[in-house]
Amino acid sequence: MNQFAPLSIARNYSFASSTVAVLRRQSFLIRALGRGIHHKVDSTIGSIMQETEADAVSIIRAITPTLDPTRHKGQAGRIAVIGGCREYTGAPYFAAISALKIGADLSHVFCTKDAAPIIKSYSPELIVHPVLEESYSVREEERKQVSVKVVAEVDKWMERFDCLVVGPGLGRDPFLLDCVSEIMKHARHSNVPIVVDGDALFLVTNNLDLVHGYPLAVLTPNVNEYKRLVQKVLKCEVDDADAHGQLSSLAKQIGGVTILRKGRSDLISDGDLVNSVSIYGSPRRCGGQGDILSGSVAVFLSWAHRDSVAADRNPTILGCIAGSALLRKAVSLAFETRKRATLTTDIIECLGRSLEDISPAR
Amino acid sequence: MNQFAPLSIARNYSFASSTVAVLRRQSFLIRALGRGIHHKVDSTIGSIMQETEADAVSIIRAITPTLDPTRHKGQAGRIAVIGGCREYTGAPYFAAISALKIGADLSHVFCTKDAAPIIKSYSPELIVHPVLEESYSVREEERKQVSVKVVAEVDKWMERFDCLVVGPGLGRDPFLLDCVSEIMKHARHSNVPIVVDGDALFLVTNNLDLVHGYPLAVLTPNVNEYKRLVQKVLKCEVDDADAHGQLSSLAKQIGGVTILRKGRSDLISDGDLVNSVSIYGSPRRCGGQGDILSGSVAVFLSWAHRDSVAADRNPTILGCIAGSALLRKAVSLAFETRKRATLTTDIIECLGRSLEDISPAR
Repeated sequence: MNQFAPLSIARNYSFASSTVAVLRRQSFLIRALGRGIHHKVDSTIGSIMQETEADAVSIIRAITPTLDPTRHKGQAGRIAVIGGCREYTGAPYFAAISALKIGADLSHVFCTKDAAPIIKSYSPELIVHPVLEESYSVREEERKQVSVKVVAEVDKWMERFDCLVVGPGLGRDPFLLDCVSEIMKHARHSNVPIVVDGDALFLVTNNLDLVHGYPLAVLTPNVNEYKRLVQKVLKCEVDDADAHGQLSSLAKQIGGVTILRKGRSDLISDGDLVNSVSIYGSPRRCGGQGDILSGSVAVFLSWAHRDSVAADRNPTILGCIAGSALLRKAVSLAFETRKRATLTTDIIECLGRSLEDISPAR
Repeated sequence: MNQFAPLSIARNYSFASSTVAVLRRQSFLIRALGRGIHHKVDSTIGSIMQETEADAVSIIRAITPTLDPTRHKGQAGRIAVIGGCREYTGAPYFAAISALKIGADLSHVFCTKDAAPIIKSYSPELIVHPVLEESYSVREEERKQVSVKVVAEVDKWMERFDCLVVGPGLGRDPFLLDCVSEIMKHARHSNVPIVVDGDALFLVTNNLDLVHGYPLAVLTPNVNEYKRLVQKVLKCEVDDADAHGQLSSLAKQIGGVTILRKGRSDLISDGDLVNSVSIYGSPRRCGGQGDILSGSVAVFLSWAHRDSVAADRNPTILGCIAGSALLRKAVSLAFETRKRATLTTDIIECLGRSLEDISPAR
């Protein structure tokens, strides 16, 4: 059953002007909070999966905006990735370039000074800001002042962003994570949606207040990150016999944030309905696929929030379903030709064709 | 005669969880030590070569794991390359990216601070740690302290690795080589297999205790490196009339390490049987092919050690045969189209197709 098909007419909605970014994001929040009553979850997992699988393609069609010659740069989405440190540079690149390949107009990366030249070298398409600092480069007595400066550097751009992805390649430097906590508070204050991945999940698991009760937050834990979240929040172990119930409880306990639990099937919940996306991807598990997912979810959720695509469904959930399904389709396409040699860059190259197959640009 | 064919059923073995990395590597060691009696070497070189050539394809098929959707990231192998200094950056990149292209999930490089940004810039797929130090950047009185720090930086990752490749682009800085000696001792203590190549062969030839008696060590000398090893260990010159006997003696003298002697035919021995791989590659001898070989051997030997693929054969030997044969096939494919212009990157691009031809991913 495809509940979503009648909504495909919503594709022709027009974007609000970028000059009303603040108002637009306030309406993101209102929509996320004020959504209607969800359909009841069928008690058999099989039927939920079937239902959601049918849904994913329609959701992508409904939330992907029509390309309209009257639109100008930025209106198809401005994404920012907060991540990239001395050790990790691939992850933020993967997230940011994926956002562009799916159709965002602009993709920024805020990373450390060491990481910036390298991330810039991967692609001239990204706008890379060398603003974050790690402990080793900041003296103890300067930290307060440097932190204020770092947060201000990101904050001056904040109003322009439709979504932040926090975490890919962030590392675990305590001073850097303190600055990122402040950036997340500012994003939340400006009602900018936040996708929390990688090392930012480590940060959030230890500081749940950063996202608690924020309906525009998405957490994207893998198997180990999910385990730590469950232990911390629900004070128990992961129970796969009650995967749906436990995920729903977890999201509810964190005040209705959306959780995308990555796995063989991706499970998505904001504390109410549990959606699953189990389109077959590939058995290849090269590192970096999670970074594509975070960039993909960021684009789709910012599109889903832009207009009332489905009045009775949380646009954050819709963004997660679309992001997960598109990644899986791209993974499957890449694997068809590359097989065991499939790398993350090969999958990224398939994002465009995957979206075109589902929702042609015309 | 294909002795190995009946073992192809072993392809469907399942992987142990990554949480039991320590136990798994202890079992690597037990399997390497506890193997049964080898088949006798035929006294005519011709028949040995014929026998081993038939073997190589079956060995690749037997040790390449089935791609299984229930597996998660890391279970198809985590490789680390120790190499890359101010002068050399290509070699560690070639080794690390080759491991990914063959099917490892994660590939790390530990190199000097100068080399890291460049190696990172070659590919966002690698995780590059700028942790090694050369003499010129460390004052005499700081050396002890810096060495401890460098070794600790690698050591905190050690348990996660299925194999180290030590040597590509390492250089010969004495302080750096001292640190690498310590890293090798730690790897050995953790039962992590080590492929020793390039400048690490220089190090090992002068410090045989680093690998003596370690059955999880592989040395991959080229003609000159082999000559120095023979002179040092056997106190004589290379005798090509008794190539097999001399190689076997050399491996035995170093306590049963595996030696892969690169040449027109690659000869492989752990002091007992001598295997040869002489699948035709190409007459092109561009630099960098040895780096592909070390990455390739690392992946296959970690796969061969994961489960009892062939109870009566040393998995380290099987990994060497598979790595050598796959490189030769990729070289041959690349040369078909690129001819004199064939470069190492062209060969790397052919690794995936070469493996797919032998062991389709399905």
